[in-house]
Amino acid sequence: MKPVNIGILGLGTVGSGTARVLQDNAAEISRRLGREVNISAVCDSSEEKARTVCPAAAFVKDPFELVQRTDVDVVVELFGGTGAAKDAVLKAIENGKHIVTANKKLLAEYGNEIFSLAEQKNVMVQFEAAVAGGIPIIKALREGLAANHIQSIAGIINGTSNFILTEMREKGSAFAEVLKKAQELGYAEADPTFDIEGHDAGHKITIMSALAFGTPVNFNACYLEGISKLDSRDIKYAEELGYRVKLLGITRKTDKGVELRVHPTLIPECRLLANVNGVMNAVRVDADMVGETLYYGAGAGALPTASAVVADIIDICRLITADPGNRVPHLAFQPSQVKAQPMLPMDEITSSYYLRVQAKDQPGVLGQIANLLAKENVSIEALIQKGVLDGSLAEIVILTHSTVEKNIKTAIAAIEALDVVYAPVVMIRMESLHGRNG
Amino acid sequence: MKPVNIGILGLGTVGSGTARVLQDNAAEISRRLGREVNISAVCDSSEEKARTVCPAAAFVKDPFELVQRTDVDVVVELFGGTGAAKDAVLKAIENGKHIVTANKKLLAEYGNEIFSLAEQKNVMVQFEAAVAGGIPIIKALREGLAANHIQSIAGIINGTSNFILTEMREKGSAFAEVLKKAQELGYAEADPTFDIEGHDAGHKITIMSALAFGTPVNFNACYLEGISKLDSRDIKYAEELGYRVKLLGITRKTDKGVELRVHPTLIPECRLLANVNGVMNAVRVDADMVGETLYYGAGAGALPTASAVVADIIDICRLITADPGNRVPHLAFQPSQVKAQPMLPMDEITSSYYLRVQAKDQPGVLGQIANLLAKENVSIEALIQKGVLDGSLAEIVILTHSTVEKNIKTAIAAIEALDVVYAPVVMIRMESLHGRNG
Repeated sequence: MKPVNIGILGLGTVGSGTARVLQDNAAEISRRLGREVNISAVCDSSEEKARTVCPAAAFVKDPFELVQRTDVDVVVELFGGTGAAKDAVLKAIENGKHIVTANKKLLAEYGNEIFSLAEQKNVMVQFEAAVAGGIPIIKALREGLAANHIQSIAGIINGTSNFILTEMREKGSAFAEVLKKAQELGYAEADPTFDIEGHDAGHKITIMSALAFGTPVNFNACYLEGISKLDSRDIKYAEELGYRVKLLGITRKTDKGVELRVHPTLIPECRLLANVNGVMNAVRVDADMVGETLYYGAGAGALPTASAVVADIIDICRLITADPGNRVPHLAFQPSQVKAQPMLPMDEITSSYYLRVQAKDQPGVLGQIANLLAKENVSIEALIQKGVLDGSLAEIVILTHSTVEKNIKTAIAAIEALDVVYAPVVMIRMESLHGRNG
Repeated sequence: MKPVNIGILGLGTVGSGTARVLQDNAAEISRRLGREVNISAVCDSSEEKARTVCPAAAFVKDPFELVQRTDVDVVVELFGGTGAAKDAVLKAIENGKHIVTANKKLLAEYGNEIFSLAEQKNVMVQFEAAVAGGIPIIKALREGLAANHIQSIAGIINGTSNFILTEMREKGSAFAEVLKKAQELGYAEADPTFDIEGHDAGHKITIMSALAFGTPVNFNACYLEGISKLDSRDIKYAEELGYRVKLLGITRKTDKGVELRVHPTLIPECRLLANVNGVMNAVRVDADMVGETLYYGAGAGALPTASAVVADIIDICRLITADPGNRVPHLAFQPSQVKAQPMLPMDEITSSYYLRVQAKDQPGVLGQIANLLAKENVSIEALIQKGVLDGSLAEIVILTHSTVEKNIKTAIAAIEALDVVYAPVVMIRMESLHGRNG
């Protein structure tokens, strides 16, 4: 089957990321899709950049030319903003091209016009990347939760603001100071207004509100209040009372009408949303049948956002490929591509371990145990001797660094064989679950 | 457009829930779908129950009869187990019926056979409800993250076990004691083996592993270790060291092969997964482009599971309805069903509030402020006087109960007008984000 041809408008952070995902993961993507995705044309202000990022694609200066090319099936709009992006998207739809966009501003402000034209022209406009970056929240709202009346949504949907609030809380620093640090780290723009005054979150919650309640997008109705006036004193007092302050986008259907608002919000510290820190995003949805669900992940960045852009491209390719009955393969990959892999026996897995050893309370026991672990190349992260239980019995709790399971088992057998140890040794596996963001 | 006809096998907890969701949310579902979903036939051991739950549907005694009926387009298998369920599903596929099932055991043990037959017969087998109840994790793995190499999955995917572990940690109780409580509350079966020994979690992680890595389902390769031998002492020691113990299903692709395992696991308390409590489920996915994402919600229960069953029914209906280009409407609802709603101005929203008032440190100030709040019907949840700042200035922090925003604004204006108060009063909104599960 011949490749699907993609034209990309704009090779900034997300555009370059999209090209990289399509290139680096080409094999895995075609294992899932059953056909290849080819970048046939790109448009960017820098021809040099275009040649570097997508050497095999045609370079096109004029966006209007790209959206009319016969070798472009899907237009991926990553210009951002509502100028050239809007004109190019409308023109592309006129020409019967399917659209993928990450442009929240465009959809929050002109979505009704764009979707209406798309309906007339029977093309798809996909926009997973426009809300919460790599988190598949649009798919959850439109498909995964389709059996429900959605009741409300509350989201941490601006990573810059969440990074600043996290730092203000953890370090007690003032807003201006943390903003400067965020700018140095590249988490905030030179002009940070759009992020810190709630505009970006407002665009995103406006789009989600429309999807939740079946209303037109209505950004003008969205109340915006940012975090620039927050005093770190209030964050501290809130914490003393058991709350965290987060910039939330909130939308809720009430008997009187729809609430649509962005503002700093106190939430109880026990909620998962309260524990979403740094630049991470999360969206909580309340719906009548499923109750509360929450979706967490990176809300920005080249590759996470590109992950959503490319998922949308795959969605469109699956639909424009014949055989709708096989749109999504049962096991996620094309049947011919489902391949057995060696399955690791437990002895071969890698993990850290928690051990609890009961031993006689006498000198030298700790050393003996440590030596037996060392003999199997198991290194110790922490070791604490717990209170003696009945005058002669000591409990020793050990956390190990990562090791292969057969090593820990050998060490445990040796420890259990010690005269001073009462078998069995308790062993529980540990996972640090480190992410890119810690 | 004529309705899609559904035949349901089994009217137990999930079957009855599915019937209820389809009936109670019929209007919202057809707003999204553009056609109606009709339960045309049901099969259950109790005819009386069938007549009560689905009075308009034909009652069928024999599952083989149901799966051959011409008035059934989609067979919803909710028998559970691998006896009649397996035979009926295979027969239904033979007859060209699309399948929706919540049966994790069936798919983890016989998925390869079922999917292979489905491919031959060109029918869809949907199974969102088989893993993590109402959380749309299958959709995320097959579609939302399709641009990625998935690297690993770690999930709290058995609510019974998570409830028991949460209680053991919070109350320091022994396993047997908490199990009894869970049975009384209906969170554990009379024979709890399937849940507490990891079988159920094993079925679910087996299915997710296949979807993540493009391998056949291989339940035999899954290592199972449950929670019945856990000592609450180890949970306490783990907590002292900064860890929580969770029953995780884990699968990971390594250079040597695929890890597939279920066991109690220590995880750092700062991770979101460590803070998933009670019967709730959560699945964390690590993938090369998007990084870590996490999906949280109810993993069991009639209505949350039915939410996933009905989402699958809607997915199938969208695909077998003509016009694949319009499979999922842009704004989630059919264009003709997108309707403006009154948008509430901020004065009309309902919220709780955090207030910080700076005032002269003299008697009677607190009372004056409290009276002004009471006058606007704002009741106080907490009030603390913070340390005096410079000998004459006091800071008063107030948390209010829920009220209408215009009332709090009127009260604030009155407070700011007091001689003893230094304006402005700091006001931050609060949201409790209570869920069904607290």
